[in-house]
Amino acid sequence: MEYTFSNKISSLQPSAIREILKATADPEIIPLAAGNPAPDAFPVKEVQEIASKILKEEPITALQYSISEGYPKLRKTVSDWMKKRENIGKEFDDTLILSGATQVMDLVTKILCNEGDTVICEEPSFIGSLNCFRSYGCKLKGIPVESDGMDVNALETALKECDNVKFIYTIPNFQNPSGATMSLEKRERLYALAKEYNVIILEDNPYGDLRVTGKALPCIKSMDTDGIVIYAGSFSKILSPGLRVAYCIAPKQITAKMTVGKQAEDVHTACLNQMIVNEWLTNYDVDSHIEKIRGIYRKKLELMCSLIDEELGDFVEYVRPEGGLFVWCKLPDDVDMLDFVRRAVEKKVAVVPGNAFLMNDTDKTQYIRLNFSTPSDEGIIKGIKALGELSKEYK
Amino acid sequence: MEYTFSNKISSLQPSAIREILKATADPEIIPLAAGNPAPDAFPVKEVQEIASKILKEEPITALQYSISEGYPKLRKTVSDWMKKRENIGKEFDDTLILSGATQVMDLVTKILCNEGDTVICEEPSFIGSLNCFRSYGCKLKGIPVESDGMDVNALETALKECDNVKFIYTIPNFQNPSGATMSLEKRERLYALAKEYNVIILEDNPYGDLRVTGKALPCIKSMDTDGIVIYAGSFSKILSPGLRVAYCIAPKQITAKMTVGKQAEDVHTACLNQMIVNEWLTNYDVDSHIEKIRGIYRKKLELMCSLIDEELGDFVEYVRPEGGLFVWCKLPDDVDMLDFVRRAVEKKVAVVPGNAFLMNDTDKTQYIRLNFSTPSDEGIIKGIKALGELSKEYK
Repeated sequence: MEYTFSNKISSLQPSAIREILKATADPEIIPLAAGNPAPDAFPVKEVQEIASKILKEEPITALQYSISEGYPKLRKTVSDWMKKRENIGKEFDDTLILSGATQVMDLVTKILCNEGDTVICEEPSFIGSLNCFRSYGCKLKGIPVESDGMDVNALETALKECDNVKFIYTIPNFQNPSGATMSLEKRERLYALAKEYNVIILEDNPYGDLRVTGKALPCIKSMDTDGIVIYAGSFSKILSPGLRVAYCIAPKQITAKMTVGKQAEDVHTACLNQMIVNEWLTNYDVDSHIEKIRGIYRKKLELMCSLIDEELGDFVEYVRPEGGLFVWCKLPDDVDMLDFVRRAVEKKVAVVPGNAFLMNDTDKTQYIRLNFSTPSDEGIIKGIKALGELSKEYK
Repeated sequence: MEYTFSNKISSLQPSAIREILKATADPEIIPLAAGNPAPDAFPVKEVQEIASKILKEEPITALQYSISEGYPKLRKTVSDWMKKRENIGKEFDDTLILSGATQVMDLVTKILCNEGDTVICEEPSFIGSLNCFRSYGCKLKGIPVESDGMDVNALETALKECDNVKFIYTIPNFQNPSGATMSLEKRERLYALAKEYNVIILEDNPYGDLRVTGKALPCIKSMDTDGIVIYAGSFSKILSPGLRVAYCIAPKQITAKMTVGKQAEDVHTACLNQMIVNEWLTNYDVDSHIEKIRGIYRKKLELMCSLIDEELGDFVEYVRPEGGLFVWCKLPDDVDMLDFVRRAVEKKVAVVPGNAFLMNDTDKTQYIRLNFSTPSDEGIIKGIKALGELSKEYK
């Protein structure tokens, strides 16, 4: 049979990162391309205890169908936790539990966008979200990211000029891939512009807890007195990505529509997994665990940056991020970036070519993304040294 | 802010069943409206053992990111299992693991349908799937279900007359809600028609293992020599719906596109859950467990049918299903069905009004759907007796 696919999916390519990850299942390849939490960042003993307790005390709740909004106890726990930690959640808001933060992007796009509508994104931005928006036939309008976040003047121009902008997608903390953190002034300006132009903000904050230096800034959602911000949070980076549990805090009219969308998409997020997260948040010392993770990543980030300075100091440019999982490096203008990435793989080092994060991935960029959470310390050392060797071939 | 929602989601209502379920969280209500497995059908001890073993032996695999296609060992296990059990899976096919069978319907619709395309469905059919198709802006064309399955002559007319039919959705075994099982002749005719008209079949088989009488019939997918059938299978009814693990067996060109869609939707299905299913299929006596479940449902179905005969014999008409979870009952023509359902709730019995399963739920029908898996035996007795009492008020 000749298969004919829908317009919106025909043009969509597999995520370059996930394809690179598959190619690098080869254990000899040093994985600077991934975005996985470090294995020692998982609270393994705690999850063992919790899973065993839940399956002993409430097995039927863990195994039976549940409601699409999420496990009621977890919704309450997350809602209280985020109110206390980030001052997020007004009377008009509600909290949903979803199957990973990508599902927040998915459902927001589903309920807000018709095909051909525009989503404004930071450029570069997370390829998973970009592909999600593309999978609904949305047009992407990229706004350059500066070292203190999105260029808000360019944002204002885009809001003036683009038709049918349905939302602005931002990762304000340790943005993927640029590592940039949006300044307080820009957060306030972004909020004011969204309000002025009557456009929703989708604030994606998977890395917020992974700050290793500097002072935390308020979430944009904490400024939301008008019901214009949808907040996506996740347990993937602080507990486990494999459990696929995330949450969304947004105005009730929006969460009601997202619930209808979720009913038709995966019915509900796995119960056992939601109960594990709830038990962990309720009865374990989450703050200490997050401190521990920060310590792990602080060490890894410092190791990677000091090696980049040593081995690649006269070759790449980068701004040291205050947290997150990535270092965004610019190669010299006369180097063919894609050639560099291919030759790195030949040297058994996987990195992500920066064009994967552009609105149009055939545009030219000199950037590559390096990840420091997935490789071992030894992997970071070997990997950056190998890139250093490679850089000499271009001199 | 005034929110404007996408066209495809604006018209979509919350699933009537799930809304009824929410309303009936009241423990006093007898839940004949649900479709939950019986609590004693869960292999609780086995899942406890398995989860404990996995989190002890392979905690990082269980908690880390994985690939969108599914946990490789489970894909292989399911693929071998279905080949052996149902003779499903040709060289051109591949197996994906998904987050519940609803996600199969979702991804198939996403990759095959543009807005305005037509999906041919049995009428009545499962509201969850209908809402999924609606959520992509598809038109639904209903084909009447007879006691031996879809009216294949009406199907042929529809294939001749409808534009842009992208697939035919069928639940051949113990169809939800009608309980009908499609005869072998009709399965063969359906396959031949799909082939003739170059249209894909989406075969949804969540209840196939829940046969309590009669002889099993071959799946339509087992006849698929042309790569035109997508098979959706699930562990929700034989293991646990709360784990949210299902699978899809379909031609590789189709699974490749579904994988791209899944990457952008929920990245991958939870690892721990996939590993639990794999361990259960590999190292436990699944056949005995399925036999045990069949025994439970055989008893419950017989109890419900004998009570309907006694209490409602001169009021409703129904065809006793050979399996599944539901009895589809027709009320007398002069009874206002929706009024009957409302008065049942007042008597603390929840049933689903049949119009929920129609292509256009404002159409008239005399049917209600009764579920026998969720209520206790006592609940079935009290529930049907209460409906019997209610029926007297109409005489």
